Amino acid sequence: MSDTIVEAVEYFSANVADLKDIPAFAKDMKEFESKCDRYVHTILTELNKTFITPIEREDIMALTTSLDDVLDGIEACASRFEMYHIQEPDEYIVLFADNLVRSAHQIKKAIYLLSEKKLLAIREPAIAINELENQADDLLRVCVKSLFASEKDPIELIKRKEIYERLEQTTDCCEDVANTLESIVMRNS
Amino acid sequence: MSDTIVEAVEYFSANVADLKDIPAFAKDMKEFESKCDRYVHTILTELNKTFITPIEREDIMALTTSLDDVLDGIEACASRFEMYHIQEPDEYIVLFADNLVRSAHQIKKAIYLLSEKKLLAIREPAIAINELENQADDLLRVCVKSLFASEKDPIELIKRKEIYERLEQTTDCCEDVANTLESIVMRNS
Amino acid sequence: MSDTIVEAVEYFSANVADLKDIPAFAKDMKEFESKCDRYVHTILTELNKTFITPIEREDIMALTTSLDDVLDGIEACASRFEMYHIQEPDEYIVLFADNLVRSAHQIKKAIYLLSEKKLLAIREPAIAINELENQADDLLRVCVKSLFASEKDPIELIKRKEIYERLEQTTDCCEDVANTLESIVMRNS
Repeated sequence: MSDTIVEAVEYFSANVADLKDIPAFAKDMKEFESKCDRYVHTILTELNKTFITPIEREDIMALTTSLDDVLDGIEACASRFEMYHIQEPDEYIVLFADNLVRSAHQIKKAIYLLSEKKLLAIREPAIAINELENQADDLLRVCVKSLFASEKDPIELIKRKEIYERLEQTTDCCEDVANTLESIVMRNS
Repeated sequence: MSDTIVEAVEYFSANVADLKDIPAFAKDMKEFESKCDRYVHTILTELNKTFITPIEREDIMALTTSLDDVLDGIEACASRFEMYHIQEPDEYIVLFADNLVRSAHQIKKAIYLLSEKKLLAIREPAIAINELENQADDLLRVCVKSLFASEKDPIELIKRKEIYERLEQTTDCCEDVANTLESIVMRNS
Repeated sequence: MSDTIVEAVEYFSANVADLKDIPAFAKDMKEFESKCDRYVHTILTELNKTFITPIEREDIMALTTSLDDVLDGIEACASRFEMYHIQEPDEYIVLFADNLVRSAHQIKKAIYLLSEKKLLAIREPAIAINELENQADDLLRVCVKSLFASEKDPIELIKRKEIYERLEQTTDCCEDVANTLESIVMRNS
């Protein structure tokens, strides 16, 4: 799942600055999300067949759900480009995408450390994800302030404000992954 | 509580397509919500008097809270019709209401299975509720896209977008009930 | 942390009715939030050095997070005054601020009772916080209804609606503190 998050967020970041074919972009992002949903289904099925799990079943569930939320979040952002016919490039969206790429790599790193049972080393990527979320929150303030200062068409303002907010909420989802991991570390070390 | 959810959602669905008396509609929905709040109060009082509970006290609390959130959600939707003076019928709202009716019946079924200790059978309604939430998310995208394509008055757009989003969020609350139930099943089977 | 919440909310309430210097107001509110963040950091560091904790580590974590969310919420409200150049006094915002001051004092009382191990006495402030949240929800409905009835500029409406909603969401954060405390009481009494 964390590999798919990295792929999806890198695809989003690589394409969002220059959207030539919005329907294809939205469709590809939906495909990443469906792939992640299939992993969730597999994890649940395996969990129901397995008696002994390496960490608590509920922790596996919570982690699965929080990872799934990241992909749901970024896919929901991508869909708004299509729903709202947003095509012009936007430097703020590029900055959010870059933040999410960095956060996705930290998630991948943390999940790798979990699989290697290097629990205490997870704190480092968890802190990095929290820091990136703080930066995204600051970025949201800057770009919403700038939007209200420049955009006089209320409907255009509503569209772009929602995309900025959904991007920032996706960094909140990344932070939830970090918090879930920290709570697993706390219970298992 | 699940009976009251079914009643409230069916009342909402039966009336929302043709709102003759919005204040009465909002008042009746508030009454369902207050009834549910009284059940929450009774459950909490009983829980504080009881030493041995059939499932963990915290699970009872989590389930109670998630059921209460469904009614809070649908009541908050109903109140917006009054706050925003929305009277004209809207086919999308009817579709959301229908989705919620089906979800409410699955919740009732799942709670019945819990009371009968048929824990493993709960997976089926839980999956159905998740599927209905996915459909509601797709419906939200369709109707918000259509709203932005047709509604040129930004204030009308804000009103209707919020109602659609609150209806979709109520299906998220139904999904939270399903997830709470699945986690209870996981810990008790 | 609960002392800082009281300070921050009282400062917000004392100044919001007559905002002469919005940047200074937003900056001071940010300072309260940073102070709270430093407490969170200290709690986490201490928690990682300590073997035996008076209540479960996870409960300490959950409580810390929920207290932090209250300050994040009120600081986010304050920042919107600056982002949106909102300067004119607003009687509804004053009422929300008053609600939050009362809630903050109940939080402080509840945390004091926890520190004194008077667990059962925590129910009283917890109920008071829930009641204040209900009142804030009613207030939100009144002021949003009034806003739509009077404000014809959609961009002004968006700004003010968001501030009202964020204030109400901050009372939801207070309620989360109350719910976290009730669940700690339930597990420890």
